[in-house]
Amino acid sequence: MAAIHGPRWLRWPSEPARRRLAYGADYNPEQWPREVWEEDVLAMRQAGVNIVSLAIFSWARLQPSADRWDFGWLDQVMDLLHAHGIAVDLATATASPPPWLTAAHPEILPVGHDGRTLWPGARQHWRPTSPVFREHALRLVRAMAERYGSHPALAAWHVNNELGCHNVYDYSDDAATAFRVWLRERYGTVEELNRAWATSFWSQAYGDWAEILPPRLAASYPNPTQQLDFKRFSSDALKHYLRAEREVLTELTPDIPVTTNFMVMGDTKGMNFADWAREVDFVSNDHYLLDGERDELSFSANLTGRLANGDPWFLMEHSTSAVNWQPVNLAKQPGGMVRDSLTHVAYGADAVCFFQWRQSAGGAEKYHSAMVPHAGTDSEVFRSVVDLGATLEALAPIAGTRRRRAQAAIVFDWDSWWASELDSHPTSRLRYRQEALDWYTAFAAAGVRVDVIGSAGEFAHYDLLVAPILHVVPQALADRLTAYVGGGGHLVTTYFSGIVNEHDHVWLGGYPGALRELLGLRIEEFGPLRDGDRVHLDLGVSGTLWSDRIDVTDPDVKIVASYTSGDHTGRPAITTRLAGAGSASYVSTRLGPDGLGPVLAELLAVSGVRPELPEAVAGAVELAVRTGDDADYWFLINRTDESVAVDGVTGEVLRAPCLAEGLTLGPREVCVLRRPH
Amino acid sequence: MAAIHGPRWLRWPSEPARRRLAYGADYNPEQWPREVWEEDVLAMRQAGVNIVSLAIFSWARLQPSADRWDFGWLDQVMDLLHAHGIAVDLATATASPPPWLTAAHPEILPVGHDGRTLWPGARQHWRPTSPVFREHALRLVRAMAERYGSHPALAAWHVNNELGCHNVYDYSDDAATAFRVWLRERYGTVEELNRAWATSFWSQAYGDWAEILPPRLAASYPNPTQQLDFKRFSSDALKHYLRAEREVLTELTPDIPVTTNFMVMGDTKGMNFADWAREVDFVSNDHYLLDGERDELSFSANLTGRLANGDPWFLMEHSTSAVNWQPVNLAKQPGGMVRDSLTHVAYGADAVCFFQWRQSAGGAEKYHSAMVPHAGTDSEVFRSVVDLGATLEALAPIAGTRRRRAQAAIVFDWDSWWASELDSHPTSRLRYRQEALDWYTAFAAAGVRVDVIGSAGEFAHYDLLVAPILHVVPQALADRLTAYVGGGGHLVTTYFSGIVNEHDHVWLGGYPGALRELLGLRIEEFGPLRDGDRVHLDLGVSGTLWSDRIDVTDPDVKIVASYTSGDHTGRPAITTRLAGAGSASYVSTRLGPDGLGPVLAELLAVSGVRPELPEAVAGAVELAVRTGDDADYWFLINRTDESVAVDGVTGEVLRAPCLAEGLTLGPREVCVLRRPH
Amino acid sequence: MAAIHGPRWLRWPSEPARRRLAYGADYNPEQWPREVWEEDVLAMRQAGVNIVSLAIFSWARLQPSADRWDFGWLDQVMDLLHAHGIAVDLATATASPPPWLTAAHPEILPVGHDGRTLWPGARQHWRPTSPVFREHALRLVRAMAERYGSHPALAAWHVNNELGCHNVYDYSDDAATAFRVWLRERYGTVEELNRAWATSFWSQAYGDWAEILPPRLAASYPNPTQQLDFKRFSSDALKHYLRAEREVLTELTPDIPVTTNFMVMGDTKGMNFADWAREVDFVSNDHYLLDGERDELSFSANLTGRLANGDPWFLMEHSTSAVNWQPVNLAKQPGGMVRDSLTHVAYGADAVCFFQWRQSAGGAEKYHSAMVPHAGTDSEVFRSVVDLGATLEALAPIAGTRRRRAQAAIVFDWDSWWASELDSHPTSRLRYRQEALDWYTAFAAAGVRVDVIGSAGEFAHYDLLVAPILHVVPQALADRLTAYVGGGGHLVTTYFSGIVNEHDHVWLGGYPGALRELLGLRIEEFGPLRDGDRVHLDLGVSGTLWSDRIDVTDPDVKIVASYTSGDHTGRPAITTRLAGAGSASYVSTRLGPDGLGPVLAELLAVSGVRPELPEAVAGAVELAVRTGDDADYWFLINRTDESVAVDGVTGEVLRAPCLAEGLTLGPREVCVLRRPH
Repeated sequence: MAAIHGPRWLRWPSEPARRRLAYGADYNPEQWPREVWEEDVLAMRQAGVNIVSLAIFSWARLQPSADRWDFGWLDQVMDLLHAHGIAVDLATATASPPPWLTAAHPEILPVGHDGRTLWPGARQHWRPTSPVFREHALRLVRAMAERYGSHPALAAWHVNNELGCHNVYDYSDDAATAFRVWLRERYGTVEELNRAWATSFWSQAYGDWAEILPPRLAASYPNPTQQLDFKRFSSDALKHYLRAEREVLTELTPDIPVTTNFMVMGDTKGMNFADWAREVDFVSNDHYLLDGERDELSFSANLTGRLANGDPWFLMEHSTSAVNWQPVNLAKQPGGMVRDSLTHVAYGADAVCFFQWRQSAGGAEKYHSAMVPHAGTDSEVFRSVVDLGATLEALAPIAGTRRRRAQAAIVFDWDSWWASELDSHPTSRLRYRQEALDWYTAFAAAGVRVDVIGSAGEFAHYDLLVAPILHVVPQALADRLTAYVGGGGHLVTTYFSGIVNEHDHVWLGGYPGALRELLGLRIEEFGPLRDGDRVHLDLGVSGTLWSDRIDVTDPDVKIVASYTSGDHTGRPAITTRLAGAGSASYVSTRLGPDGLGPVLAELLAVSGVRPELPEAVAGAVELAVRTGDDADYWFLINRTDESVAVDGVTGEVLRAPCLAEGLTLGPREVCVLRRPH
Repeated sequence: MAAIHGPRWLRWPSEPARRRLAYGADYNPEQWPREVWEEDVLAMRQAGVNIVSLAIFSWARLQPSADRWDFGWLDQVMDLLHAHGIAVDLATATASPPPWLTAAHPEILPVGHDGRTLWPGARQHWRPTSPVFREHALRLVRAMAERYGSHPALAAWHVNNELGCHNVYDYSDDAATAFRVWLRERYGTVEELNRAWATSFWSQAYGDWAEILPPRLAASYPNPTQQLDFKRFSSDALKHYLRAEREVLTELTPDIPVTTNFMVMGDTKGMNFADWAREVDFVSNDHYLLDGERDELSFSANLTGRLANGDPWFLMEHSTSAVNWQPVNLAKQPGGMVRDSLTHVAYGADAVCFFQWRQSAGGAEKYHSAMVPHAGTDSEVFRSVVDLGATLEALAPIAGTRRRRAQAAIVFDWDSWWASELDSHPTSRLRYRQEALDWYTAFAAAGVRVDVIGSAGEFAHYDLLVAPILHVVPQALADRLTAYVGGGGHLVTTYFSGIVNEHDHVWLGGYPGALRELLGLRIEEFGPLRDGDRVHLDLGVSGTLWSDRIDVTDPDVKIVASYTSGDHTGRPAITTRLAGAGSASYVSTRLGPDGLGPVLAELLAVSGVRPELPEAVAGAVELAVRTGDDADYWFLINRTDESVAVDGVTGEVLRAPCLAEGLTLGPREVCVLRRPH
Repeated sequence: MAAIHGPRWLRWPSEPARRRLAYGADYNPEQWPREVWEEDVLAMRQAGVNIVSLAIFSWARLQPSADRWDFGWLDQVMDLLHAHGIAVDLATATASPPPWLTAAHPEILPVGHDGRTLWPGARQHWRPTSPVFREHALRLVRAMAERYGSHPALAAWHVNNELGCHNVYDYSDDAATAFRVWLRERYGTVEELNRAWATSFWSQAYGDWAEILPPRLAASYPNPTQQLDFKRFSSDALKHYLRAEREVLTELTPDIPVTTNFMVMGDTKGMNFADWAREVDFVSNDHYLLDGERDELSFSANLTGRLANGDPWFLMEHSTSAVNWQPVNLAKQPGGMVRDSLTHVAYGADAVCFFQWRQSAGGAEKYHSAMVPHAGTDSEVFRSVVDLGATLEALAPIAGTRRRRAQAAIVFDWDSWWASELDSHPTSRLRYRQEALDWYTAFAAAGVRVDVIGSAGEFAHYDLLVAPILHVVPQALADRLTAYVGGGGHLVTTYFSGIVNEHDHVWLGGYPGALRELLGLRIEEFGPLRDGDRVHLDLGVSGTLWSDRIDVTDPDVKIVASYTSGDHTGRPAITTRLAGAGSASYVSTRLGPDGLGPVLAELLAVSGVRPELPEAVAGAVELAVRTGDDADYWFLINRTDESVAVDGVTGEVLRAPCLAEGLTLGPREVCVLRRPH
């Protein structure tokens, strides 16, 4: 197995190890009568499903009361699946506590920042820090591991589910207690915490750990470092809970890999998945396409793959068609499901799974699409599901191959995300992730591959490093960036970067403090723009949101673009400091994906980063590359809703849809080429 | 009396029974010094007022503390009114608990879904399920009945006031207890409830009734069936409270009819008045004109009249001019008050009353208009009030006549209203009542009379039945609709109809499950549209909100209209399945009142429903018909702000305003014609 | 000293009394290491700083626990400042309770109207009425006074800080108790309160004081008089707290003047500063420029100066550049800081101070500008700060001079502000302060000086009195206005004026009740307009928001303007009743600053009020005048962003910037001329 995948991957049951991509869904047989189960496994085989996630919301069914257990039905399901060659990613079933538990122990319910309890009735109504919840949950984990640890269908453990989706921020007294423990570990002494939190202002100096609270609803803006630390703590509290479940599983079933489904997507901001990635045997992710945001899907898949260190990862959930939680939930267009799935594979997923197998008739997610829709197997959706199964089978050789690094990378940093969007800032309009996504789209439009990496990633792998709004720059990060440029790297950063250290303290002496020398410039005051205001640059593009008044302080700084309108007309808008073989560039306004185009062209030229696809398809076709022992695999993804002819790209066509029309990609189509080394 | 009205109506005091319409207002003499009372009764006589609603908010005055009663002032008022020939619709005075009661028993205060208490200071701060409140309130009801049950002025009992206006949803522990009782009655066993609520998903299976809670603030979407049942329960809880008051009254004063003022209007959604209508001796309603929504007034009056089963009903409150609770509160235009009043009469009201007699100088409603405004009796408003009194006297022959049924009906269904607008649906933009109102406006624009009926109404009375967004279709309703079409009826329904059963479980196999066969079509995925998106039909109209991809599955389906834009271009948009003499039609998008015009024309043709007014005034003049022993009464209502000449309509002109100008209706004017059988 | 200033002003320490303007900032040395303090005082001297506000948020540092005190560091700071000739406005340090206090006494935390506690973590988390808080706070005040009462640097006491900024409305049980005490003092008996609150409606009659609560979250609109009285009480509760601190200080240090910083600015509405002004030895104010609202700054400065009775006042806080609490926080434009500062001086400020001296590196206000920005003293901001110091030194002769009254005044009335914007009114769109500001801008555009005065001000000083939306008119105020007009004064008022008495009871008989006779007109119904609706007047201007239907009832009423569109076409829009030498005018719609122009021209003509500046600069240059023993001081403020040539104005140029260019004012520039009597 190790030869095919990284150190830990699914334990495929009872058959010779062979390359294959996993394919399946969350399976919730509890919702259906026994006779439907038989239909299910037959339809799964028809679709090529080889794995399902099971028991995610089964706690109430498995343990109907504190002292009663009912595993019989699950035994049957496990056996039935195994009999049909379908592996199981088995949940620990702790995702949502059953009514008897919250009735007996309302003290496990989360509490909002304004003191309002989150009651049962939906799901995930538990405090990450509740000792009572943990005791009951780990008892269940142990029971699951003991009963199913040696079941032949068991391929992996699925810890809880979407940890933090609804309960990441809990302000209860349990949270307060755990926050204090976390802070004590971080700061050692109350004095050190007082320094870090700058409590000398607003009379906030603490005399004792016991006085410290989560940033609950306050009369004015809560202390920003308290807010930032509470975000860090909240992410860590869930990580520690994940670790607690994992430790039980590792103790009892050391051979079974453990994962949990992250949510690297959209505005899911509370969990630092770059940090969590070290806690699982392999990375899993859930991703749902936001209306019209195809590039966001690619961005999330790309980042997920890099958090997995280039190793294969598991797409645990996405949707065959519409979801049910957006204001308006559109069905996917023809080909959309396949393009979404293969885009994840292109960026390293070796598993393509959905929520869920069979669309519910009742309950909160009954309007969420599934592999078997309400209409049944006689439906377009199910026919597409069957087609996708065949496609994934055809792509089996790709299983176990790794992502091939790009020449360029975008740095994505949770601390900067959290800190740059805190309250009482120069502008409340700044959106960290959107700026990163804008750059990603600009790369895609330029036809240039780019990786999205965490800020702890190895910068030296890349010729060009774009770190948008790198707001939090501790000294060590500043040193790493300086070393990167010193080593010949080409760094690009933007407005509101380099402003604060790890405690959200401003680096003094002029902005962008931590990066002032590296960039060779100095800014005295922040330059947020009013809604609707726009500044123009001599590159023919225009900016919104921000516009810095830049003083160049280093003779090696070259003005890439200047303002032609606004308060800073005639002054630099974009600069590059040449530093030996490397460079450090600064973009002082929000240009958006289109406006970034000409800027990126300059940066690519400076850094020597080149497109790998023919210029004719740049922007229309996105390229992602996986690499195996003897070949690369090129994924050519049609980003558009038009057909695109691709000339001058050669390789063995692996994926059927392309065969019919040669290298013309229909709307939303994906072609996979095998290119031997 | 029974000859003039239905089985129960006002007990007009101490004079020979004669036909007359009731006219009056809420009367709150407590707000004014004794000397004003004398002015009041004289001005009432001047205006032709013959009834007032009394003591609605008098609890604190009648029972100043738990053990002290003060009826003296009310005795005086009752006697004074009676002396001037003014009857009394006497409130049980329980609408708003006095300060001493909430101070002693804060446990009667309602609690919001997020645990926030609704404190005293306004009105209606009581839990519908509170045993403590009920005990105190029924004690008061009993005291009122004992003291005034034989007072000659007493014409009817007015239970409480606008039940549920502010307190329909209470999530307190009292509510939880009562909810469990209600659920136990509905489901019998916890297992059955678990099935109905689909609790196998999200680990929600209950082991005991005691674990069940109202759908309080939760971490995610609460169980939808729990939500729907809580809406049903909340409506029932108030209905049961109404019943409790009524039982006291019926026991003590069996000859006095009992009513309570419903609020069939606008977005007042929490109370299923179709269900409540059986609980009163005659139906009463409050209605306030929403800015610019004249058709909404007609729709509400129409529906109220049908809930009253065609019998006369009581317009308990509307306004002479501006209200005080809209964002901007405009005075009514000249003639507006009379048109509003007579529109209610046209649809069956035998009483025209206002909130309130004399405009308050202080308190929360002081900027709400009244019969006697702040300006006093020397005012346009009071002069109009006097005129209206004369008009109603002229219309006395209409008293006791019944609504004449239309050929067509629109079905209005509270379950579908509640369920179709729940969260996590295909679109959050759907508005059930607006779609029904759009159809109503389309009928009005076509000059065709239509009834608005509850879903329990007798379908067979109608040639054409429009059931917009009939979302909840239990098997029995599906059967009734099938029988209706089988019997030659013409049914029309729309997008998102027939989707779920009474438990909000989706009917499987393709949409619209419950009506798939009847309509002869099948839809695999829902078709919500983005905000701003619009699809065009070959009928020359366009739709928003929704657009289904329809597969026709029955050879007898005729395509009425097809899409010419959007994802479903070339496919059916509107279909009619011919079934013997009947038909079943489907409209798959939201067309709005104008877009429905040509569609309705087709449907009228198919169903043989014809306008009764000359084509020249269709749309400008709305017709409503009441029918008595020897004549029909036609109400011709000018829907526009222009003058309209009405030719070719004959009859004896009953209402004065028309006389002056023959059959030309000035802006907003109403003409009443008597047409002998 | 008394010769230079009014009866109480700063006690300048240890040097011969001389005229000078105070200049400085809040100084928070606790945020910085000891070595920075030395830099601070040197830079202060460089900038001409002569006073700082100290210890505002030092409670936690001064009293680290209930029984531990640490004054040593503050002793050092006081001594260091004094050694450098810098006086101290010493805070009582009670602004924000330390963590140990709220941990031990959570019962001091404020509670919102919906029962949600405001927790520590920010600042000002204390109930104004908490006896526990008061006990601890006054203990601190006493300690401060005892320790520093005779320190030579001490120039004034600064009570707490921005009282009520976040905690003015507290609905806790402490607040309930204090509210009852306040009500008992106001009304004497429960019966009288019931009358005033009109509790006979909605069954709200109280039987006992103990039943009364603050207007907490209710099921519907809380009683409006209860709401209004709660606003009055809440302002008074803070005033009483201010008084409690002041009494300790006056007892211990009778020679040291006491002040506290008001917040006469923008929408800060909760504190009736006209009432508070009597509680301090001299008035202080904080003001922050709202984006684009220069006239609002002038308006606030103008009003503040009148609340100070024309005596000099202390600008305690404003900003050198950007703030951090608006949605987007722009840096000030060049010259902006100086213009803002001198505008305050023009209207009577003898002190120009900032929040804060050195911009914080951490904490909630780190993005708020300061005298020493993050960039350090090598910055444009600091250079401007130094320039301003020199300017203020040049303006020293102005110190101690008083405001010279204008011929016209705008009346600003807190009761009307509070009452006119309550809920359930004719329109929710009305903005009291904006209407007043519109008039102020119209005066500025006309080049005419105007004072902004409280409603208790002496009307007889003015030839023209504009009282926009004077909604609350008790009999005594009506009498004063009648006497004013009778004495030859020219009164102007607007829509929704004269409507209610002090209990928010409507004056009956037609609007505007209390002023009906005086204005010679009568209105029967309110005339709010829909959003977007606009009515035109024959003066060539147009109105929004409101349009009354006016009946003229007095033969001496002259129609100034009539409506040419809308429901009242052809009827009066603006009227003037001539009454002997005086007049009373009514403006029945919202005209906005531009639309008021021609109206104001008429009113100026009627009242004989004339501009003092040449017509050529009217609108571009704002004039404010201070007057001393032997000369007037004219402040010519360029309101625009263009240069303006000022001809025909003579005087000795006091302020340097003008000298360079004669009497041409650059954008945003201010010139000060000395004009001997």
